[in-house]
Amino acid sequence: MNTEWIAVDWGTSHLRAWAMQGDAVLDQAQSVKGMARVDKGGFQAALFELIEGWLGTAPLEVIACGMVGARQGWVEAPYSAVPCEPTSVAPFRVPGTDPRIRAFVVPGLKQTAPPDIMRGEETQIAGFLASRQNWDGVICLPGTHTKWVQISAGEVVSFRTFMTGEMFDLLGGQSVLKHSIGEGWDDAAFAEATADAMSKPEQLAARLFGLRAADLLQGQDGGVIRARLSGYLIGAELAATRPYWLGQQLAIIGAESLSEVYAKALQQQGAFLETANSTKCTLAGLQQARNLTRQTA
Amino acid sequence: MNTEWIAVDWGTSHLRAWAMQGDAVLDQAQSVKGMARVDKGGFQAALFELIEGWLGTAPLEVIACGMVGARQGWVEAPYSAVPCEPTSVAPFRVPGTDPRIRAFVVPGLKQTAPPDIMRGEETQIAGFLASRQNWDGVICLPGTHTKWVQISAGEVVSFRTFMTGEMFDLLGGQSVLKHSIGEGWDDAAFAEATADAMSKPEQLAARLFGLRAADLLQGQDGGVIRARLSGYLIGAELAATRPYWLGQQLAIIGAESLSEVYAKALQQQGAFLETANSTKCTLAGLQQARNLTRQTA
Repeated sequence: MNTEWIAVDWGTSHLRAWAMQGDAVLDQAQSVKGMARVDKGGFQAALFELIEGWLGTAPLEVIACGMVGARQGWVEAPYSAVPCEPTSVAPFRVPGTDPRIRAFVVPGLKQTAPPDIMRGEETQIAGFLASRQNWDGVICLPGTHTKWVQISAGEVVSFRTFMTGEMFDLLGGQSVLKHSIGEGWDDAAFAEATADAMSKPEQLAARLFGLRAADLLQGQDGGVIRARLSGYLIGAELAATRPYWLGQQLAIIGAESLSEVYAKALQQQGAFLETANSTKCTLAGLQQARNLTRQTA
Repeated sequence: MNTEWIAVDWGTSHLRAWAMQGDAVLDQAQSVKGMARVDKGGFQAALFELIEGWLGTAPLEVIACGMVGARQGWVEAPYSAVPCEPTSVAPFRVPGTDPRIRAFVVPGLKQTAPPDIMRGEETQIAGFLASRQNWDGVICLPGTHTKWVQISAGEVVSFRTFMTGEMFDLLGGQSVLKHSIGEGWDDAAFAEATADAMSKPEQLAARLFGLRAADLLQGQDGGVIRARLSGYLIGAELAATRPYWLGQQLAIIGAESLSEVYAKALQQQGAFLETANSTKCTLAGLQQARNLTRQTA
């Protein structure tokens, strides 16, 4: 194995690393040592658990994106202010590392009004745009904190973050709905709930309790409840983001199953969209960021 | 002490009991042995921890309301279907108790379309109406699961439950907002957030993340964030319940501090309302329920 550099996606809850040769993946590894679970002095050790076997005598570049660049992360990589290119600033060098690596962290993006921030998605966006000349439109990045990002002339013009995914996890896992929700899925229930929430988003808290009440009174399939919960939350989000996606060129970058759910909801509304694999986008974006370190090194 | 009967409010998380002589409170006690924390066979023991000192040789009536009447409770007290009086059916006798008590559980209410349920609030409503002849209007009972209840000619005509309180607890205590929320309160921030959510309820998930982003970018007072979170959630609820409260005679029954928050939000919208003490309403309602057991005994 002839590892040329190491790509790292280091989020709040997970750490993923790839041994790279140019843009080819030679090996990969992951752990649950996300940023939130690592002490200030423990980042290099957490990473080395995954990558030590890839290291040689010559120092390898490590390019990391995600929450690892937050103040409480490995090195603080201050946000770039939009409008700007998704990776406009060279990654920040992590000081004092083991001599077998030269580690860099990609800065996130911030927006002043309305206040918003991202860390990690900017790298996926850069990777997505790298293979598309003059792509203007809107990118949706579904996840715990779903981002809607307006792209024009290679720049992130504006973006909005929705706590939809985190709300789904909390409501499905820790509210009274945990007694009713189950595995599985129901497309019709999802479509109906999405449409309902788009027209009456103010009813969210009542619709949620209604799921529990319907189950207690009539019995409901756990997968139907799961689909409805998702539909109520995503429907409200689509109502809020209508100016973003209506009549725009649209792309979804995310994990496959969640991207499919968003794609279904948007296609029901007549939107045209493409989906892109988030891991591929991350790797392509980290490659872009790597080029920036070499220009400035 | 000459205890005549024992009033019990037995919710999901708490148990409260009062030694009563007519409508006068002689003594009170409480514990955290709510319905969800007691095994099927352990209800009498959990209650006796509080009331055993009040018991004599002659059997005392115990009248209980709340989740204790659920299927997994002390005895199942099946829901009455609305429209109906809030306590239209005699409480259900708990079989096989210690001979020093004769225990009864008040049934809850159910609504078929849209599906909804309550247990405990029906007793507060009965107590509220007991001292008001011919009161028609709408009662709001704020709490973990806030109820909006339409009253006409002494009957509960319809009601809706909102998961607003549970969402506030989950978002403030377990989402990414837990890092930003603090003690304290800010009336102006609450008013602004309420108005914003009433006009744009679909933006909820974005407004929530905006609280975190604003704190990270500019720093925010924890009490301001607390008030805004409350305002966003209650504002959406008020948008959904507008047909309930607009131009109606309105009463709020609940814990003092939460009732005040709802009263402020509604008064900002020009609503006229009275507030009633929830414990007093519960005791008056249990007294009503007790009269029903004696009529049918």
